[in-house]
Amino acid sequence: MTREDAKVLVVAALTERTPGERRVALVPEVVERLVAQGFEVLVEAGAGAGALAPDDAYASAGAKVCPLDDILARADVILAVRRPVAAVLARLRPGQVVIGMLDARVAGAERADLEDAAARGVVLLSLDLLPRTLSRAQTMDALSSQASVAGYRAAVVAAEAYGRYFPMMITAAGTARPAKVLVLGAGVAGLQAIGTARRLGAQVTGYDVRSAAEGEVKSLGATFLKTATTMAAGDGAGGYARALTPEEGAAQRAELDAAIRKFDIVITTAQVPGGKPPVLVSAETVAAMSPGSVLVDLAAGPLGGNVAGSVADERVVTPGGVTVVGAGNLPAQMAPGASAAYSRNVTALLTAIVADGALHLDPADEIVAAVWFSQRVPAEGTTDDE
Amino acid sequence: MTREDAKVLVVAALTERTPGERRVALVPEVVERLVAQGFEVLVEAGAGAGALAPDDAYASAGAKVCPLDDILARADVILAVRRPVAAVLARLRPGQVVIGMLDARVAGAERADLEDAAARGVVLLSLDLLPRTLSRAQTMDALSSQASVAGYRAAVVAAEAYGRYFPMMITAAGTARPAKVLVLGAGVAGLQAIGTARRLGAQVTGYDVRSAAEGEVKSLGATFLKTATTMAAGDGAGGYARALTPEEGAAQRAELDAAIRKFDIVITTAQVPGGKPPVLVSAETVAAMSPGSVLVDLAAGPLGGNVAGSVADERVVTPGGVTVVGAGNLPAQMAPGASAAYSRNVTALLTAIVADGALHLDPADEIVAAVWFSQRVPAEGTTDDE
Repeated sequence: MTREDAKVLVVAALTERTPGERRVALVPEVVERLVAQGFEVLVEAGAGAGALAPDDAYASAGAKVCPLDDILARADVILAVRRPVAAVLARLRPGQVVIGMLDARVAGAERADLEDAAARGVVLLSLDLLPRTLSRAQTMDALSSQASVAGYRAAVVAAEAYGRYFPMMITAAGTARPAKVLVLGAGVAGLQAIGTARRLGAQVTGYDVRSAAEGEVKSLGATFLKTATTMAAGDGAGGYARALTPEEGAAQRAELDAAIRKFDIVITTAQVPGGKPPVLVSAETVAAMSPGSVLVDLAAGPLGGNVAGSVADERVVTPGGVTVVGAGNLPAQMAPGASAAYSRNVTALLTAIVADGALHLDPADEIVAAVWFSQRVPAEGTTDDE
Repeated sequence: MTREDAKVLVVAALTERTPGERRVALVPEVVERLVAQGFEVLVEAGAGAGALAPDDAYASAGAKVCPLDDILARADVILAVRRPVAAVLARLRPGQVVIGMLDARVAGAERADLEDAAARGVVLLSLDLLPRTLSRAQTMDALSSQASVAGYRAAVVAAEAYGRYFPMMITAAGTARPAKVLVLGAGVAGLQAIGTARRLGAQVTGYDVRSAAEGEVKSLGATFLKTATTMAAGDGAGGYARALTPEEGAAQRAELDAAIRKFDIVITTAQVPGGKPPVLVSAETVAAMSPGSVLVDLAAGPLGGNVAGSVADERVVTPGGVTVVGAGNLPAQMAPGASAAYSRNVTALLTAIVADGALHLDPADEIVAAVWFSQRVPAEGTTDDE
């Protein structure tokens, strides 16, 4: 990577333009490492502001801080957290590589933007297409690193929104019982939420339709909630639970409905990539919960959420005194830490497509083949809605 | 307490009128217990709203929900969290007993209000005058129970305000180091903050001028920060550190100044009863801290705080990216849990002044003598300001 005769590869980090997004694809410490490896690094002015990384920190790390025009003109590889907005996608050049969580299974106009860019020869590598079970891919697993942030933060936000202690408190004047926390979905986010709520001293129960989750939940010292649905449904592919049939979904809701009312805190994590999240907590259940209960909905977004009435990025208190936190993008709320982890993931993929200081995209490579967005990547926007 | 011929003792809980105060002196479960013991219980309409205890919960527990006028007319003992506002104090009758955290060492107009009521023969029992070291007093120790809530919540608020993980995170892509937390003051609040930050996985250091604190801090698995001041200053009375001399204060600040800059999170807990809190973190130190650092100031109030620039009940982000949380009344933010604990404390004192179902205030009783506010209780408003 230090061949003096070769053109130096130019890698750039964009300012995120998605509303509410505070993360950045490269943090200064990772810029330093890339510069040491022989890359030229460009960072869009202001890109790190939301993650508390000012332009001068990037300059000190060896990056050139510059406007978007320079990046679009000069970058060989553009690193982003989220799918660049349409106006940026439209200006990408053939052969230019973009690495990010592009939401490759998105539908509608956003999908058309991706397809247009791909058709023009822009190389779109989407981290949400990563084959997560490959051990080589683990350093690149941005979905996991960000889900881990989301799960940790979900428990912290729940503790902050809750009006009582999480741990049991024994004092001269009496004992406060520990908070009862239920985490729905035991993927990376759910397990991290379980672990964090346990750390804080809560009495934690986990639930997942995947049978393998039982052992993982129990290994964290939590109780596993068994329902008939858990027993009947098999395991899905790619690290996700498979979508339930409508009948299974209804049965699951009825069983959860009864269980949920017994908890003080419910954290829901059932996201569907590119699709509408299943409603796991109905309006009736929310209304039946005790005053002071807290629901944290990690799936809350423009397409809905796991909790009826949750609003993305808002905290709603119902007339019955139940707090519903719409928390679909918690990693953006913990942007410095989330960006540091993401930076390492995105540069791990970058390193995998560079050989001897030059781009080397090998379609025979399992990872490259999987993450490379083409018009063949199926949209899943409307298929998995339950 | 079940003598049929005796007048039933009427105990009442007021609605708190201090701005921002959401706690309530009696929660429904404690009302139930008092009713079972033979008290008649009145609760001012709306008193529990801030603590998520609606009027009908009090009615179900056996209380009469009524307006202020009825309480002032009928109550033998009035329970409050904070000092009732002047308009209420002025209407209390001779012989009527008020139990609350009345802030008996307050100065100025508020003190005149207390003195006027006491002069009229109102019996003011202030929980902040409790001899905290007496073992009999421990069930009544509201300052401790509320400080415990404040300390727990300080760590939770710090975690929520911080942009990175508290625990160390080891992943395939790299390791995130644990947050470095410094807690200034190792009283009840400080120790609870230390314990909670430790639970969350942070690397915690505690500091106190009282030498006895070293063992307590270390017993929680935290590091104790030693400074020359810690070594020189002795221990104060009544569970508080003694006030430092101006020279000691300056030396302490200089030493802390250097230490504080190395931490991600600083939680300060140096409150002075009735007085102005010492400034432990100067404006220069705040400016020298790394972007993303968080300060939580448990002493922030109308008289100032431990952190230069902290504003009571507000979260300020400095131009340098440091978040300063003015957190002088954290128990009010966790009103249901704080009120439950406070209820038990206040009723423990109530029980101590009732014999055979009648009020029995014995001035020879160590506790009664200590908590009974009279014009002889010294105001400390302006003496301990450093």
